[in-house]
Amino acid sequence: MKIPIIRDVLEESDALARQNLERFNSEGIYVVNMMSSPGAGKTTLLERTISELKSKGLKCAVIEGDITSTIDSEKLAHLNIPIVQANTQPFGGDCHVGSHLVHAALKMLPLHDLNYIFIENIGNLVCPAEFYLGEHIKIVVLSLPEGEDKPVKYPLMFRECKACLLNKMDLLPHLDVDIPLLNKNLVHVNGELTVFPVSAKTGSGFPAWIDWLESRRSNVAKVAIRELEQAN
Amino acid sequence: MKIPIIRDVLEESDALARQNLERFNSEGIYVVNMMSSPGAGKTTLLERTISELKSKGLKCAVIEGDITSTIDSEKLAHLNIPIVQANTQPFGGDCHVGSHLVHAALKMLPLHDLNYIFIENIGNLVCPAEFYLGEHIKIVVLSLPEGEDKPVKYPLMFRECKACLLNKMDLLPHLDVDIPLLNKNLVHVNGELTVFPVSAKTGSGFPAWIDWLESRRSNVAKVAIRELEQAN
Repeated sequence: MKIPIIRDVLEESDALARQNLERFNSEGIYVVNMMSSPGAGKTTLLERTISELKSKGLKCAVIEGDITSTIDSEKLAHLNIPIVQANTQPFGGDCHVGSHLVHAALKMLPLHDLNYIFIENIGNLVCPAEFYLGEHIKIVVLSLPEGEDKPVKYPLMFRECKACLLNKMDLLPHLDVDIPLLNKNLVHVNGELTVFPVSAKTGSGFPAWIDWLESRRSNVAKVAIRELEQAN
Repeated sequence: MKIPIIRDVLEESDALARQNLERFNSEGIYVVNMMSSPGAGKTTLLERTISELKSKGLKCAVIEGDITSTIDSEKLAHLNIPIVQANTQPFGGDCHVGSHLVHAALKMLPLHDLNYIFIENIGNLVCPAEFYLGEHIKIVVLSLPEGEDKPVKYPLMFRECKACLLNKMDLLPHLDVDIPLLNKNLVHVNGELTVFPVSAKTGSGFPAWIDWLESRRSNVAKVAIRELEQAN
């Protein structure tokens, strides 16, 4: 008699994520996993980020994660870029994008013709931080109205990310948020985090964020070229 | 040879929730499960709600759900009411409050001397909606800066709740949020939802919310008294 073994689901998920990463690297695509609470402004941030990158001649695609609906994809449609809507509703309404969804989405994207893929994760400051999708970098968006205590209350998210986009800076005069304490909390949770105060609405803070993103991408590209040269 | 059976975890969770409810009913306590995205303002709302209820002579306690930290409990400490901090970090950093945590918290509260228990769930618009804790009512807080599309993107949360507190109304002049569309989206997802536009900061909208809550509580109390009379 054979006793069935329950395999570690996370192990399977990570194996698929590594396959995704290999594919990204072989195609020379830089992949960003963008996460936040619901309503922090990920879609509007992506809209402006992609516009800026397009104006530099860079080609972007989006994997749009949502439990249900195509609202965010429709908001981005005017950018005229490849977008895949990844809804988790048929998979039990998962609270995060899984590596299998990214894997499936890759079949629908023109990979040979892309510099960036942005994965807009489901609005959730908890669970998405736990899942590796094969991305090169995780970014968290924190909007000012959420308050200065969020890094301390949701530390895993802020530890997993390399950068934090502090969004809705245009609302600062109308809020009681304590910016020095917010900065202290961010550093306390992750001293390596790069913080960009931005407003997706007004565009303030975007040049620094775009330059930083581009420098991260070109570093990955340089490593890939070096590896290629060593292999030949 | 005995083959172990994996029991339905949800079944066990629901059984514990029903035990919680029986205890609440036998003590005549009305229990509210308050949920929202991170930073929607649950703690500040609770602060004002409990102050108003206290001024009517009602006795409240809070079960404060967080992954980690005691920030929210400390914010409420000046109310001088019983508070139990329920951190999920020792339980694997769960993204929602579980019925076992509520069960454990009950042992630390003066149940014979309470009219209300408020459970402040973890900031998460997805997972907490899936778990019944034994509460009488689920309430969702949606803050205006999160935008008008949230009910459509996170429908389960808005379907499970009886009321929605539309918080941060004081920010309305500074936001682009489309209120008629927001109302349309709320009705589309849950036609039975009672919506209270409020500001935890200024107190606007609170009288209607407090009256409604009190009428819900007294209805449950009447049913309990009727059942008691029938039993004798």
